[in-house]
Amino acid sequence: MTQSFHPPVRTLMGPGPSDVNPRILEALSRPTIGHLDPAFVGLMDEIKALLQFAFQTRNALTLPVSAPGSAGMETCFVNLVSAGDKVVVAQNGVFGGRMKENVERCGGVAVMVQDDWGHAVDPQKVDDALKANPEAKVLAFVHAETSTGARSDAAELCRLAQQHDCLSIVDTVTGLGGIEVDVDGWGADAVYSGTQKCLSCVPGLSPVTFSERAAAAISAREHRAQSWFMDLDLVMAYWGEGAQRAYHHTAPINALYGLHEALVILEEEGLQNAWARHRLNHEALAAGLESLNIEFVVDAAHRLPQLNCVRFPAGVDDAAVRRQLLQDFQLEIGAGLGPLAGKVWRIGLMGYASNQKNVLLCLGALESVLAQQGVPVDAGEAVAAAQATYASHA
Amino acid sequence: MTQSFHPPVRTLMGPGPSDVNPRILEALSRPTIGHLDPAFVGLMDEIKALLQFAFQTRNALTLPVSAPGSAGMETCFVNLVSAGDKVVVAQNGVFGGRMKENVERCGGVAVMVQDDWGHAVDPQKVDDALKANPEAKVLAFVHAETSTGARSDAAELCRLAQQHDCLSIVDTVTGLGGIEVDVDGWGADAVYSGTQKCLSCVPGLSPVTFSERAAAAISAREHRAQSWFMDLDLVMAYWGEGAQRAYHHTAPINALYGLHEALVILEEEGLQNAWARHRLNHEALAAGLESLNIEFVVDAAHRLPQLNCVRFPAGVDDAAVRRQLLQDFQLEIGAGLGPLAGKVWRIGLMGYASNQKNVLLCLGALESVLAQQGVPVDAGEAVAAAQATYASHA
Repeated sequence: MTQSFHPPVRTLMGPGPSDVNPRILEALSRPTIGHLDPAFVGLMDEIKALLQFAFQTRNALTLPVSAPGSAGMETCFVNLVSAGDKVVVAQNGVFGGRMKENVERCGGVAVMVQDDWGHAVDPQKVDDALKANPEAKVLAFVHAETSTGARSDAAELCRLAQQHDCLSIVDTVTGLGGIEVDVDGWGADAVYSGTQKCLSCVPGLSPVTFSERAAAAISAREHRAQSWFMDLDLVMAYWGEGAQRAYHHTAPINALYGLHEALVILEEEGLQNAWARHRLNHEALAAGLESLNIEFVVDAAHRLPQLNCVRFPAGVDDAAVRRQLLQDFQLEIGAGLGPLAGKVWRIGLMGYASNQKNVLLCLGALESVLAQQGVPVDAGEAVAAAQATYASHA
Repeated sequence: MTQSFHPPVRTLMGPGPSDVNPRILEALSRPTIGHLDPAFVGLMDEIKALLQFAFQTRNALTLPVSAPGSAGMETCFVNLVSAGDKVVVAQNGVFGGRMKENVERCGGVAVMVQDDWGHAVDPQKVDDALKANPEAKVLAFVHAETSTGARSDAAELCRLAQQHDCLSIVDTVTGLGGIEVDVDGWGADAVYSGTQKCLSCVPGLSPVTFSERAAAAISAREHRAQSWFMDLDLVMAYWGEGAQRAYHHTAPINALYGLHEALVILEEEGLQNAWARHRLNHEALAAGLESLNIEFVVDAAHRLPQLNCVRFPAGVDDAAVRRQLLQDFQLEIGAGLGPLAGKVWRIGLMGYASNQKNVLLCLGALESVLAQQGVPVDAGEAVAAAQATYASHA
């Protein structure tokens, strides 16, 4: 007989999932109700309003896709890209590459604009590509690149899309709740995120929002979207306004309890306060890491405070350190991906996990494990550097 | 400020979601761990083995899709149907129609075999269609039609598919855990289910299993699947055997805790015991409904014990009865769909909800509400009829 699964209690400081607020875990376990229950319809309305708050948008077409962030990405592409469409895709990490995959599977043509991993997307290159491809219909880019910790200038890139009469598709899976996401201010057209990063909810849902311009493009499609599950015409008949909710698929009820609670918590804290908290804990962690001579991959101006991508000291056994952090400290940090694999760690300070306790734990644990790896470490120095940062902000 | 959402406590006797076992609700709230954590990899292996048990299969390609049942359906179609492929689709309710949508969105051609709603799929008609379309590559049908409560002969239909050298795609969203599902015995090729029916878990995941024949067809595809999120080549690199799990998407960790617990509960009870329990509670409910002169849509030989689709008495206000059941008894039953809308109720006895307490509650509540609607009812008669059934099986 198989036994019930009781997970170890970890501290999640990787690239996501991040530590989940216990209020959200409790919300998940509330009694299930039907997906057409009047009480559930009320919940859906509140989730939509809270997502509009989080995204800073008045877009009516704002809802959580019933699947993880990569399905949120695909929802944007299958609804906005038709066979033969040209899409300019800016790539500066893993997720721009996944966007290319999406474009091609929709039968579109991806025009790639490459920047080095760890750099922000260069608006000049994007402008050049849009000028060189005047027939392009969409510009797609990643606002907060989870694979490198780089933040790109979403406002400027969305402005370029508008200037060239393109729709913009923006990945802010790691951005929402951790740094400013200003969908209406940017004039972004299709934006997707995830629940398991700075919203501190469990993985499994993907908040998305579409501008009126994007919604009009979806309505004006000549062919149905190639995905039934992700067809927004159908999804919106269920999530849309009005008394009659047309059954589409069975919504993931309890996961939505969790997302609702996560958004209530964000509303209680306030967006600006949440961003400031992510900033402060990042600065404290960065002070500690620098005292250990651990360097950031991304320059200071473009760093995501919630995802610290750092080069570990020469000679250190990457996998051994991460394994020991997990075994001895129940602490998860992330490995590098792609060209950064085996060279960097990704240390997340996302949502509920972005707190002083985690910063000090991480630095103290790293001091200990690195010393065991033979790296010269002054015990307590990194923790002290972080504490000094907190003191200077008190 | 938005307040936390505290759902009403319902009894869920509609077409799903069904009542969730409190053990599963508790499992959902266990601490989140990373999707590459060694402990999580062990959980994945157990879930695969438990799904093989539930599906009665040795298929290696057996896993839960990270999205609801309709994404499980789409996963089968996008991986097995390419542009130009002919697919014979048997329709006897809502979900055969959705299969047709899926075929067409994959660029395939659907040859429809129609049976009346409430009837089983007629194997003779399917045989005729397969003979008339020798180039057909796939036969798709619904084993347990959630919209009507009809059960079709999956063994015979899969046999016909094999005989005509077609792959079979089988929808048993409502079947798994409630009636016999014998994937290897049937020789089925692609089978999908849901978590929120007879597994009594929350909605949001879709267990799927693929035969070696189906897996070979997927590997031999000339073009990539049109969906990135549902591409089984990529999904299996994460869920597959071996030490190296390649990151695909972030798995819905806590939802998988719930599914694991649901499958542990099914294993504890045993498949045959679970089926017998569904059968007994169905018979008790049926005895009570018949005493109220409420008739079944489906003939006795083809009824799903877990989904009782019944014509309500003439003159009864459908919506008013369901509203009153919800308000006065916190009891949800389902409405009709399509040609059965406004004519039937769908009373679920699925998984954890299939128990004597719910049968008696439902019959007692119906007696009360129907009497208020002016239907002549002998108070207590329906409940007594159900109790007599239990007594005769004791």
